Amino acid sequence: MKKNAFYAQSGGVTSVINASAAGVIVQARNSKKINKVLAGKNGILGALREELIDTSNETKSFINSLSTRPGGIFGSCRYKLKDFDESEKEYKRLFDVFDAHNIGYFFYNGGNDSADTALKIYKACKALNFDLKCIAIPKTVDNDLAVTDCCPGFGSVAKYVVNSTIEASLDVESMAESSTKVFILEVMGRHAGWIAGSSVIAKESYPHCPDIILLPEVAFNKSNFLKKVKQVYDKKGFCVIVASEGIRNSRGKFIAESNTKDAFGHTQLGGVAPNLSDLISKKLKLKNHWAVSDYLQRSARHLASDVDLKHALEVGKKAVMFADKGLFGVMPTIKRISNNPYQWKIEATPIERIANVEKKLPKSFISSDGFGITKKGADYFRPLLGKRDASDIKNYPVFTKGKLKLVSKKLSPWND
Amino acid sequence: MKKNAFYAQSGGVTSVINASAAGVIVQARNSKKINKVLAGKNGILGALREELIDTSNETKSFINSLSTRPGGIFGSCRYKLKDFDESEKEYKRLFDVFDAHNIGYFFYNGGNDSADTALKIYKACKALNFDLKCIAIPKTVDNDLAVTDCCPGFGSVAKYVVNSTIEASLDVESMAESSTKVFILEVMGRHAGWIAGSSVIAKESYPHCPDIILLPEVAFNKSNFLKKVKQVYDKKGFCVIVASEGIRNSRGKFIAESNTKDAFGHTQLGGVAPNLSDLISKKLKLKNHWAVSDYLQRSARHLASDVDLKHALEVGKKAVMFADKGLFGVMPTIKRISNNPYQWKIEATPIERIANVEKKLPKSFISSDGFGITKKGADYFRPLLGKRDASDIKNYPVFTKGKLKLVSKKLSPWND
Repeated sequence: MKKNAFYAQSGGVTSVINASAAGVIVQARNSKKINKVLAGKNGILGALREELIDTSNETKSFINSLSTRPGGIFGSCRYKLKDFDESEKEYKRLFDVFDAHNIGYFFYNGGNDSADTALKIYKACKALNFDLKCIAIPKTVDNDLAVTDCCPGFGSVAKYVVNSTIEASLDVESMAESSTKVFILEVMGRHAGWIAGSSVIAKESYPHCPDIILLPEVAFNKSNFLKKVKQVYDKKGFCVIVASEGIRNSRGKFIAESNTKDAFGHTQLGGVAPNLSDLISKKLKLKNHWAVSDYLQRSARHLASDVDLKHALEVGKKAVMFADKGLFGVMPTIKRISNNPYQWKIEATPIERIANVEKKLPKSFISSDGFGITKKGADYFRPLLGKRDASDIKNYPVFTKGKLKLVSKKLSPWND
Repeated sequence: MKKNAFYAQSGGVTSVINASAAGVIVQARNSKKINKVLAGKNGILGALREELIDTSNETKSFINSLSTRPGGIFGSCRYKLKDFDESEKEYKRLFDVFDAHNIGYFFYNGGNDSADTALKIYKACKALNFDLKCIAIPKTVDNDLAVTDCCPGFGSVAKYVVNSTIEASLDVESMAESSTKVFILEVMGRHAGWIAGSSVIAKESYPHCPDIILLPEVAFNKSNFLKKVKQVYDKKGFCVIVASEGIRNSRGKFIAESNTKDAFGHTQLGGVAPNLSDLISKKLKLKNHWAVSDYLQRSARHLASDVDLKHALEVGKKAVMFADKGLFGVMPTIKRISNNPYQWKIEATPIERIANVEKKLPKSFISSDGFGITKKGADYFRPLLGKRDASDIKNYPVFTKGKLKLVSKKLSPWND
């Protein structure tokens, strides 16, 4: 007898996570083992609260439109399950809900923390002898999951960053003679420099920009940095910097954490870009501008990479295919076959190998002065940026209202 | 006998200012009165320094490609000419350079300050009896020029802001249940709220977002603002704010100027968005994210409005047509004929009516609570956003290398 599948989105959303949702739903509609896909409202919280969206009510055209919609259609969450030993009742509640709704498949779409959630549930199933087939689906703009060559969501952020770097460089170049000399773009990447590093591809359209890339993998040294900015400025009259939000000094302190306190003794506003701007203004007396893209970069569906989009769709589909084949406790991971032409395939990797491992930028990708990316790094990034996918976006990003109807609750409310 | 024309770009650049340059050059190549267009390298500085780029060396395909290139191809400047009475020698130098290079036409492409420069030169010509036909060409993302219905450059920034607001709203909506509740997007507009106001059009794609628009025309009141954020959050679970960089309190003090000083007594980092974020964190204890688009918004050629692009091209062409007709001391301004269908035409307006006048958002565009835009305002903004022009942008913004060859100098260097 067919069983229902639970699908949920977790952690920071991306501009293509809904393509993975579409992949799961479309493929599940063809599955011989899966009946309905019930989506968790706000990730795993939807399971705990028994808030399950019945995707079988949605039209095919709505499901297809998901690929063009940024954000997480079913709502995401930042919620860490406790360890099984510490909080058995959470797991029992999940299994009560799954049991009540005939759920036998668990698809969890997220990054590191979400793989950890999937792994915990996988282990709890074994401990409580509950029959639930767990599959994690990769998603993170941070690109820091182990094993997989890249993570769906990343290529599109990279494309946004490269595009923005080129456009802003053309702007600052034209202002530099009598106005702004330095431009700083702050991008995401709390622990790993994949996003900042990808900006190297801008140089292939616009020579030399970015001039400086600041990575969390390289300890930030004020005087080396200022020397480098000065050097670039003296040579060409302006300087473009892409800085990861996660850069730290040699003592491991985030640069975004300003030392200053306000009148009430509160620690002052963060942000790497304004801090670097302040440093450049004070020490080099160079007029500068800064931008912080924040959510704009990860929701920029209008600039999505077609390659990233294919990855996102495919990991969703493959997750269901794996389930159909009886493969569990795995994540569909992307394996690169060749750079040029770019070829890839999807494999099944045990979640244990992925959860709680953080993949940093390899040393071989970082230039010797620590302010740039090597050719090897550029060769890695280039294919992931693909072409701009704008197939279905005539003007603004698609916002189609789905039914998003919750199934009737069968259990008592979850109080925690 | 034909005379040469001087063309230069001035002030903050836009994603479509080069379309105006292309308009001037293409039209001048058909003119019966104009010989070559010599472009000033870095605006009026190019004239003072006798750094003139001979555009007749450029291919037609390079000139056409300019319409797809953000930034100012010839370099812009922030340089204020002194009044004629104060500094006659600057004007004499300009006229020496123009005389040496047989320049009889002066096209100056910029905003308020640039119209002022054009006006000063126009007046100096009369005073010194120098035969130079001055025409100003409008350009400013701030949209604050008098008389003209709108300014080339503005529609594309508006499009960027609307697009970003929709995308970020979809993102924060999906995070709000267990993470970010408030998102703040800081946009340009030091003195007028046109850019922030245009974000109202996002609501037509994505209901209610932005929930709050902060305009420089409305004195910022902390407690009213916090009350409004709380109200929106209580009602729908998240809140999206678009804030103009130029908002001030009732005493006229910019909110971006933080009160705090760092350890060395320097005034602390600015930015409206981080300041509002800090306020919301401390007073409402709501997790929030913020973005500052800065140059990204005005260089976002990949999102340019096709209407804005047509305006930019057309004011360039019309400037030359006016010159051909013997019309001087004017600026081509845009007159709206109807909203739906959107129809417009270009008229000639005396520069005196435009220079040094700053057009603010009319009261009738601002909602009664001061946190939004009226239907009348939306009706104004809507047609300017047009459709996305991506005709020639296959992937990244075009960076084509022109020859950009300077003409040989004939005068001694300018020292000032």
